[in-house]
Amino acid sequence: MTAAHGDTGLLAPGWSGSAASSATSDHAYLRALLDAEAALTRAQAALGLAPAEAAAVVTEAAGSDAFDVRSVAERARAGGNPVIPLVADLTEAVGEEYGPYVHRGATSQDIMDTASMLVAARTLGLLLDDLGRTERALAALATEHRDTAMPGRTLTQHAVPTTFGLKAAGWRSLVLDARDRVLTVRDTLPAQLGGAAGTLAAFGAYGASDPTELPAAYARELGLRAPELPWHTLRTPVADLAGCLAFTAGALGKIAVDVLTLSRTEISEVVEGSGGGSSAMPHKSNPVRSTLIASAARRAPQLAATLYGSLAAEDERPAGAWHAEWEPLRDLLRLAGGAARDAVELAEGLRVRPEAMREHLDLTDGLIVSERLSAELAPVLGRARAKELLTRLASTGRPLDQAPELADADLDPTHYTGSAGALTDRALERR
Amino acid sequence: MTAAHGDTGLLAPGWSGSAASSATSDHAYLRALLDAEAALTRAQAALGLAPAEAAAVVTEAAGSDAFDVRSVAERARAGGNPVIPLVADLTEAVGEEYGPYVHRGATSQDIMDTASMLVAARTLGLLLDDLGRTERALAALATEHRDTAMPGRTLTQHAVPTTFGLKAAGWRSLVLDARDRVLTVRDTLPAQLGGAAGTLAAFGAYGASDPTELPAAYARELGLRAPELPWHTLRTPVADLAGCLAFTAGALGKIAVDVLTLSRTEISEVVEGSGGGSSAMPHKSNPVRSTLIASAARRAPQLAATLYGSLAAEDERPAGAWHAEWEPLRDLLRLAGGAARDAVELAEGLRVRPEAMREHLDLTDGLIVSERLSAELAPVLGRARAKELLTRLASTGRPLDQAPELADADLDPTHYTGSAGALTDRALERR
Amino acid sequence: MTAAHGDTGLLAPGWSGSAASSATSDHAYLRALLDAEAALTRAQAALGLAPAEAAAVVTEAAGSDAFDVRSVAERARAGGNPVIPLVADLTEAVGEEYGPYVHRGATSQDIMDTASMLVAARTLGLLLDDLGRTERALAALATEHRDTAMPGRTLTQHAVPTTFGLKAAGWRSLVLDARDRVLTVRDTLPAQLGGAAGTLAAFGAYGASDPTELPAAYARELGLRAPELPWHTLRTPVADLAGCLAFTAGALGKIAVDVLTLSRTEISEVVEGSGGGSSAMPHKSNPVRSTLIASAARRAPQLAATLYGSLAAEDERPAGAWHAEWEPLRDLLRLAGGAARDAVELAEGLRVRPEAMREHLDLTDGLIVSERLSAELAPVLGRARAKELLTRLASTGRPLDQAPELADADLDPTHYTGSAGALTDRALERR
Amino acid sequence: MTAAHGDTGLLAPGWSGSAASSATSDHAYLRALLDAEAALTRAQAALGLAPAEAAAVVTEAAGSDAFDVRSVAERARAGGNPVIPLVADLTEAVGEEYGPYVHRGATSQDIMDTASMLVAARTLGLLLDDLGRTERALAALATEHRDTAMPGRTLTQHAVPTTFGLKAAGWRSLVLDARDRVLTVRDTLPAQLGGAAGTLAAFGAYGASDPTELPAAYARELGLRAPELPWHTLRTPVADLAGCLAFTAGALGKIAVDVLTLSRTEISEVVEGSGGGSSAMPHKSNPVRSTLIASAARRAPQLAATLYGSLAAEDERPAGAWHAEWEPLRDLLRLAGGAARDAVELAEGLRVRPEAMREHLDLTDGLIVSERLSAELAPVLGRARAKELLTRLASTGRPLDQAPELADADLDPTHYTGSAGALTDRALERR
Repeated sequence: MTAAHGDTGLLAPGWSGSAASSATSDHAYLRALLDAEAALTRAQAALGLAPAEAAAVVTEAAGSDAFDVRSVAERARAGGNPVIPLVADLTEAVGEEYGPYVHRGATSQDIMDTASMLVAARTLGLLLDDLGRTERALAALATEHRDTAMPGRTLTQHAVPTTFGLKAAGWRSLVLDARDRVLTVRDTLPAQLGGAAGTLAAFGAYGASDPTELPAAYARELGLRAPELPWHTLRTPVADLAGCLAFTAGALGKIAVDVLTLSRTEISEVVEGSGGGSSAMPHKSNPVRSTLIASAARRAPQLAATLYGSLAAEDERPAGAWHAEWEPLRDLLRLAGGAARDAVELAEGLRVRPEAMREHLDLTDGLIVSERLSAELAPVLGRARAKELLTRLASTGRPLDQAPELADADLDPTHYTGSAGALTDRALERR
Repeated sequence: MTAAHGDTGLLAPGWSGSAASSATSDHAYLRALLDAEAALTRAQAALGLAPAEAAAVVTEAAGSDAFDVRSVAERARAGGNPVIPLVADLTEAVGEEYGPYVHRGATSQDIMDTASMLVAARTLGLLLDDLGRTERALAALATEHRDTAMPGRTLTQHAVPTTFGLKAAGWRSLVLDARDRVLTVRDTLPAQLGGAAGTLAAFGAYGASDPTELPAAYARELGLRAPELPWHTLRTPVADLAGCLAFTAGALGKIAVDVLTLSRTEISEVVEGSGGGSSAMPHKSNPVRSTLIASAARRAPQLAATLYGSLAAEDERPAGAWHAEWEPLRDLLRLAGGAARDAVELAEGLRVRPEAMREHLDLTDGLIVSERLSAELAPVLGRARAKELLTRLASTGRPLDQAPELADADLDPTHYTGSAGALTDRALERR
Repeated sequence: MTAAHGDTGLLAPGWSGSAASSATSDHAYLRALLDAEAALTRAQAALGLAPAEAAAVVTEAAGSDAFDVRSVAERARAGGNPVIPLVADLTEAVGEEYGPYVHRGATSQDIMDTASMLVAARTLGLLLDDLGRTERALAALATEHRDTAMPGRTLTQHAVPTTFGLKAAGWRSLVLDARDRVLTVRDTLPAQLGGAAGTLAAFGAYGASDPTELPAAYARELGLRAPELPWHTLRTPVADLAGCLAFTAGALGKIAVDVLTLSRTEISEVVEGSGGGSSAMPHKSNPVRSTLIASAARRAPQLAATLYGSLAAEDERPAGAWHAEWEPLRDLLRLAGGAARDAVELAEGLRVRPEAMREHLDLTDGLIVSERLSAELAPVLGRARAKELLTRLASTGRPLDQAPELADADLDPTHYTGSAGALTDRALERR
Repeated sequence: MTAAHGDTGLLAPGWSGSAASSATSDHAYLRALLDAEAALTRAQAALGLAPAEAAAVVTEAAGSDAFDVRSVAERARAGGNPVIPLVADLTEAVGEEYGPYVHRGATSQDIMDTASMLVAARTLGLLLDDLGRTERALAALATEHRDTAMPGRTLTQHAVPTTFGLKAAGWRSLVLDARDRVLTVRDTLPAQLGGAAGTLAAFGAYGASDPTELPAAYARELGLRAPELPWHTLRTPVADLAGCLAFTAGALGKIAVDVLTLSRTEISEVVEGSGGGSSAMPHKSNPVRSTLIASAARRAPQLAATLYGSLAAEDERPAGAWHAEWEPLRDLLRLAGGAARDAVELAEGLRVRPEAMREHLDLTDGLIVSERLSAELAPVLGRARAKELLTRLASTGRPLDQAPELADADLDPTHYTGSAGALTDRALERR
């Protein structure tokens, strides 16, 4: 418990220790900032604006692990961002000859935004892997349980039967929706390069004949998209990240709240593969993965709101809106990344209990198929009288199969799953 | 001021009286609910599940203006949604013979969600019109002021020169981003049809051999997309609407906060075409359009957060998450729609004052080009000494053109707009 | 369905038709705006700044129901707030002689803010009534069920027994917390009066020797608190409202989510007094009151966030932050007011099923008292071995009373409710 | 840049390195968790439920710095909270004899919530110190500039004159409002103790004759308030923290946005004491303190929203709502604490430029007193004609003192500050 160490996720079992956690640590950001600086010098060299040696030397210096993240963090306070002290450190590390080629022509925001996009791109890659694994596990569940009947529940009450296959197929379709949105955004994440006010003017002052070539060269070095315009205050990429990450957390949150419900002691239709224990109660097996995913789903929307709010960024660099993006964007990457990690484990380990589902279908003594009876009786008795009859029977609490009026009715709930199977098949065709 | 009237936007000058307001009124929703009911019966008739007469009679009854929205609203309380009382009213209006074909096999959510999508689709169309007008007006501004130099401002301070053309081109690019996102979403808005728990079972009970054909037929009647699956608790369409609407409000908000800044009494580089008056101060001309857009941009993210939060919807119909969507989705449609209306007026009417911009470029007595001087002096004096010299000169407050060290320097700020023109040209190529 | 009517809550079964709805309608706001104008003239008369006749005439004119809220709403767009057109209408209604005493020396925000506080004060009064009724019904439930044992549930799983009395007492304590916070805020709601920029200067220009007396006189006329300072951009009252209303919605939300869980088909330990029906399923009885309260609890926090965000209001009147308050404040009043209405009905009508609770205590075959066994066995076997034993027994699925090691143990769950009774008694002492 | 280190605020210049940062680090939380465990054993000893030696040994062991926060964080994942692994570590450290007295009878949430309250109480103390310093600096500014006239600005436009004294007094009143709210909350922060489901049952099983005495004894050990009831799912303390911290961030945000506006290059009526530099532009002096405060004010409301949302916590421990509180509460403490640190520096260092204010009062050539002229001309010309005249004069752009109609008028803006001085005096009386 030495004071020198920073935060490591003590309050965040939802993402602590995950791949997304490492990919978004202060050190990962520092790495990305340095990568951005090195790429900037290389891009200038590639266009003949800096000697090749400068590019090599800056790249090597930036590749070092010697930068002190805590010191940079603390010195960031003076100017309000970490790029200023980092440029000082890097320039010193590069040495007198090529130091002037460090950060040349750029503004802090060019580096900070680019680093954010690098971190985001890397984390989204990890996220996509986990969404893929989750999706496949859910596909297997949907296939296996295509015809496993269970109660459909609306407003907490048994409504009509459905199948666990359809439920799992629905979960999977949300995961695929998340994947599609994340993919689209990842493939458009741009590098940032505009100079002090987004006009690329300094690069001209440093000799570029057409400075507009530079952002593309820079983006190429980094594997990011070339920006159409400097986007210092055109925050589409950040808003798009907000949207796809809030979506992902929410989509996984749907699975989580379903599992939480279905694993209640009284319901127990599903059980998490590895439930969490309790210090005091030896018997407890808690749905911890779902709990942590649900927790992420509760937080993500408000973090996204802050990012959407930062779209209204005044001037050529706003005083506050930009700074308000940094931590929430990272938090979103972590929450979505951590939730996806837990979703893999949840989906791959989920134990389904068809016998409990079957048992619950009888809990209402036939009323779970009252819709069907209603439909079948209506042509015979008229709609109103049919409804009346069923409402009366329901209020007695007597099992429907004892009602003489329903002597011939098919009250088997497993016969009333409608098109659940066909819908499941159709949903599984999507890749 | 008769008690019988409802709210008409007294607290909402930002959307009151707009096309989006009418398109999202209680009456518009009632219309959409009735349209959905009529389409449902027609779709069943089209598939041979109901007589053609039923479709005609229900459609005619649903087309009436006689339904009492206030009464429906009040009776909605018992069951928690307005579809239940409306179905009762419509069934009665249709009469005994075809009444049983009203709402047959559907659940309230089928109708409510479909109506929301109809209202959304209609409102997004209006929104797109206004984004188009705004974009064209901004293109004209960008073209006209391609070379109008003005101070670039970062963290509230003059940084380096930019052009108003580039600023307007940036605004336009955000509007185009909004348009693209809105278009994508509008074209995917699905109808909703699943029955009680999303299995389409009742349609089978009513005789459909393949109930999965019905949603597509229903969607066709309404001009909406056929859903892959019933999406009662797979809320992708609502989340997508949240994202594109929060984006739109924020994108327009960027324009608004810039105009608010630039029209400050001390700056006056732009003036709204028709400023708002004041009861007490005859001279005031307030930037009211920007104010109202900025207000919308402050509210939209949190409304979107509520919708993203509703992704985590348990069971086959959630107890709360679904109900929490209705008003925020409408509010977002109104805020974005109202903001777009104001943006048209703002962009088309904006008066630009190049002379004020030019004047302000001299406010810092040359320091606005210090970046350039830094770049040009660095090779001569070394980077550190160049910076030192400029910092010293800056601190004296003496105009730079009186500094002997800078006797040969080009201090004309209009010569230091970098690639602003080229970037503007490139941005304007986007359609 | 005539186009001339406004919104009446079609999308809002949670507050439509409630007392809070009427108290916050456009018409209620119009009334409050007119009350504020009339009070302003009367206060000036009281201090000798206007003739008594002016006060009488303005008060009478303002008392009329003839003002056209729709027209005011639409004309509000030009200047961005409804006070400007309303003052024009009122001035005209007052007539030439005393017209000049209408709105004299005030700014639109004086009237708008004061009207908001009037509406808030009135609505909070209604809210307090409903919180009081809810609290009393919950006290009765807690008293009646002081010793009704039921499963305590943590992370969805049975943990140890608790009592329904303690649960109800906890609900009540939250309602009392809400009441206390609402009361505190209601009693501090201030009138607003500052003139154009909050200096009261115009009142001096109109002859007041000490204009600082005026706000207190004005507040007295309205039954509001006299402000320490004009608070045009010191938004403490609005933030305080945000806090107490979000708290109230959340406190009631806790009750709602508990009832939703406990009324699940598989649990059925409580049932809402009057469940909501379903058009398709005759048997359904949905927990609609809880659903609507839960829905309000999902929306309120984000609305409060917008209001807290408006604290950062620049200048002497902000361009956007103020305007962004109006609708969210009203929405919060409605949501909290509607939720309180539903909470009364929920609490007064709740049916408790002790037999179901008792039955569920046996669901885990004794494991629900494993904590107790752990405590009792530890001194005998040592803590680790005791835990081991219980974990092993738990994993077998065999009822604990069949385990020879526990032959003498008291496995009756109703004997292990700890201090639930004493805690309930203590909580009920709070008034 | 060694991988072993955690986050140290690289993305958070707003709170990195602040006292609030240390007080809320993972290590501070670990310390608080250990303090809570030690207090629990001591409280049991004080009531005779544990040997005095156990209390001493546990307290000593818990006082060690040897616990590995990273390891605890990673092992927290299994059960979903850090208390479970920490109890294991502490039990081991205590040794066989007294190990059984560690965490005896408690649940993880007892310790986690208590630790959060300890951290909150400590951080609020620091926050109050900084609010106090800020308040005093603002009082000095208000006193010094009681009569420094400046333009009052509404909707970005000059309205009528005000004084900087009144502005600073208003800022101070918000800071005092924040202080009052923080103080109230700090003094009510309760310890948490309820055992597995909040019934205190285990303490009875361990021999307590009246377990309800224990929470108070425990609270005394920690300097926290004794809870009325276990509040595992009665989250009033967390919601209250959310409210007062969002309020504080917003209150300081008001100061920040004003300073940002007033320090714009074109306005320059105030300048931050130590502006932040720029790597590229030697002349820049950015209002960094205000920028960072404004950034905090943008984020805090959404974090508070998440906490208010967690009020709706189901059962005796919710699956997600509780976990969603941990990081947002810490974030709020950090943002408010960091903002208060910056506010001290901002307020103590602010340079006011009365000459710029005076100059700007003339920018509108007299129109800034048009309200006064309107008031004075109305009795002579009639209200309508007076307004007409002034509107006409305003539209000509000619200085008002050249208008023959106003030959006798007092156009000196410094004579039209109304009651600004008296209001300042009154506000400064508040302590």
